[in-house]
Amino acid sequence: MKRAELAKRIDHTLLGPTADTEAVKRLCEEAIQFDVASACVNPCHVELVRESLKGSDVKVCAVVGFPHGMSTSETKAFEAQKAIAAGADELDMVINVGALKEGDYAFVSEDIHAVCVAAEKAPRPVSVKVILEMALLTEEEKVAGATLAKAAGADYVKTSTGFGPGGATVEDVALLRATVGEGIGVKAAGGIRDAETAMAMVEAGADRIGASRTGAILERIEA
Amino acid sequence: MKRAELAKRIDHTLLGPTADTEAVKRLCEEAIQFDVASACVNPCHVELVRESLKGSDVKVCAVVGFPHGMSTSETKAFEAQKAIAAGADELDMVINVGALKEGDYAFVSEDIHAVCVAAEKAPRPVSVKVILEMALLTEEEKVAGATLAKAAGADYVKTSTGFGPGGATVEDVALLRATVGEGIGVKAAGGIRDAETAMAMVEAGADRIGASRTGAILERIEA
Repeated sequence: MKRAELAKRIDHTLLGPTADTEAVKRLCEEAIQFDVASACVNPCHVELVRESLKGSDVKVCAVVGFPHGMSTSETKAFEAQKAIAAGADELDMVINVGALKEGDYAFVSEDIHAVCVAAEKAPRPVSVKVILEMALLTEEEKVAGATLAKAAGADYVKTSTGFGPGGATVEDVALLRATVGEGIGVKAAGGIRDAETAMAMVEAGADRIGASRTGAILERIEA
Repeated sequence: MKRAELAKRIDHTLLGPTADTEAVKRLCEEAIQFDVASACVNPCHVELVRESLKGSDVKVCAVVGFPHGMSTSETKAFEAQKAIAAGADELDMVINVGALKEGDYAFVSEDIHAVCVAAEKAPRPVSVKVILEMALLTEEEKVAGATLAKAAGADYVKTSTGFGPGGATVEDVALLRATVGEGIGVKAAGGIRDAETAMAMVEAGADRIGASRTGAILERIEA
């Protein structure tokens, strides 16, 4: 895989509570320079990203219910709807991990579906990625979460927030791909800081990579 | 200070992404047993807590924009309003740390005010605690954040989420008290696990303590 092709699989990401205007603008400049898939930010920065990316084909990606996923489904749907109105093309939502771990599959399913419905109502195509925070899950819970996400209408399942006790692993990416098949995407995120790790994720089945050190990853890939 | 008096200063707390129904019910049983100020939970658990605390005078406390504080002001206000409708008597909201650090005081102020307005519109008294996540702030930012919170209508300023790079310190509690005076409250939270630490926070000026190990704290205090 050449550099440009890998770049178009990367969500260039700036999350966390200290992100500010200057850093978000820099993220967007880099996103355009590297021609990545999207710039992925907190909801409070979506408008700024939309403005900053104008004229490029880099998508605007907003997180929802991030990073703990413990807001209500109603609030997640509201946040999704407002992010779309502000310019988001993609939504990375966090599931309710507690509900998944106690086996309340109806709750988990409806929680994901609430965000998918908001995306379906958008005036343009909006894709939904469902973050499972896999470092908190057993194997059974990982498979259940991915299955529920696909059934609820997700476009991607995603390994991690980057703020949990662990990030993406090759094993988890392979498990997600095996679970959801080829119908929807798999996004690997969390701790992917070099080209070798990024390529290993792609080989394991990831069609999207979340990364903040995108420059360091891409400079090691053949142009 | 006797045990019962300290207990009425404690928000007995269960946050984080793996909290489930059984753990929330247990939290409420303990909250009633110890007769604390409130049981503090994620928005998705507010209704369950309201039901579980029925007939006691323990308050229902919900977090808002938790833990990163990077949702929009509109979403924070919506989440606050829905938490109140579900039974919350107290709201612990997280500020936009990035905006504070870049000196956008108008944004920080309006963000806090949006949640205070939701509280003012409630059919019963609802208090707002403003979490500054002080481990991420300089001294100047700590003072600015507390000043803006008080001016925007907060009932308390609060040190930490418990999920940041550091929790409450005696120095920070004293700084908050010196900054806001006696007109509003100060809540110390994050890493308060024993009676000595809890009492040190009270002596430094805290009138509310956030704790998950409430039993371990109170058993060391004279009844």
